[in-house]
Amino acid sequence: MRKNFGAQSDIYPMPVFIVAAYDENGRANCMNAAWGGIYESNQLMVCLSHSHKTTKNIKHSKAFTVSIADAKHVVEADYVGVVSGNNEPDKIAKAGLTTSKAEFVNAPIINEFPMAIECNLLKFNEDGICIGEIVNISADESVLGDDGLVDPCKLDAITFDPVHNAYLRLGEKVGNAFSDGKKLK
Amino acid sequence: MRKNFGAQSDIYPMPVFIVAAYDENGRANCMNAAWGGIYESNQLMVCLSHSHKTTKNIKHSKAFTVSIADAKHVVEADYVGVVSGNNEPDKIAKAGLTTSKAEFVNAPIINEFPMAIECNLLKFNEDGICIGEIVNISADESVLGDDGLVDPCKLDAITFDPVHNAYLRLGEKVGNAFSDGKKLK
Repeated sequence: MRKNFGAQSDIYPMPVFIVAAYDENGRANCMNAAWGGIYESNQLMVCLSHSHKTTKNIKHSKAFTVSIADAKHVVEADYVGVVSGNNEPDKIAKAGLTTSKAEFVNAPIINEFPMAIECNLLKFNEDGICIGEIVNISADESVLGDDGLVDPCKLDAITFDPVHNAYLRLGEKVGNAFSDGKKLK
Repeated sequence: MRKNFGAQSDIYPMPVFIVAAYDENGRANCMNAAWGGIYESNQLMVCLSHSHKTTKNIKHSKAFTVSIADAKHVVEADYVGVVSGNNEPDKIAKAGLTTSKAEFVNAPIINEFPMAIECNLLKFNEDGICIGEIVNISADESVLGDDGLVDPCKLDAITFDPVHNAYLRLGEKVGNAFSDGKKLK
């Protein structure tokens, strides 16, 4: 038997994106966003309401980064979701976070988060959704595996559980994509 | 030190959506899609190339469901990603899956996946991205907790690791959203 829950914006998994951009004075700000994902090849979408300081900053600077929030920084990730940069201009410092300019776009990298996607603003589309062109992904060497690639176990990314307002970490591998299904062919 | 990986469509987490729709004869088909997420309130986006049978079916039927793939059905989930409904009309049966008509939209529910989002097609937007209006979410009682809501541990949703083409399950809770961050205020 299935139970109906009506119209909800609930999926699993939902990301915990930390979206960061510079304002017109070069001051970094960031926010927590769960509505987004890959839009198409090398493009990322994030739904940002107009009122956010970060939205205004992206419209000005035409660039942003998306850091992947990790379990080690769950408090910091949540803080930048509950406090607005419109009211707290020192939000990043108050969170205990530091930034560096991204290597490929005019946006801040938050040093403490181990993986970041660097985007140039492609547009706010017909529905007002922010679409970024991914120009680089960088990751701290501490989260790389022996193969030199991001190791999800070391990254320890978190996800947002919209039903219980909880953060969950990613767990262990349970299968191989483009492979396991061939057993049924 | 950070390592640069260039322009990649890699984020964590990435969903494993099983997108299902009826063709013009009422035959169900489905596919595996990782590019998508919540678009805005009660709207879901999924990037589907034109060539997919499911894309054609959605354009015809104006509705689709998105099932959340779970660890118990990782082989089936992968199978519907490696085989095309253009070549295998009995894809769902070959996967060992069964369907029922969704209660609220003209699209199939795949009975074996424990949670599904029922969508009416809102549009293919200016970039050809499929946008659905979520009209209902249903979940099997076997994945509900004592509070009557979806329990992520019981759901055991999987995510796609784009770096290693692996499926990972969601892990344990590591924090409370809209709460833990208040410690820093």
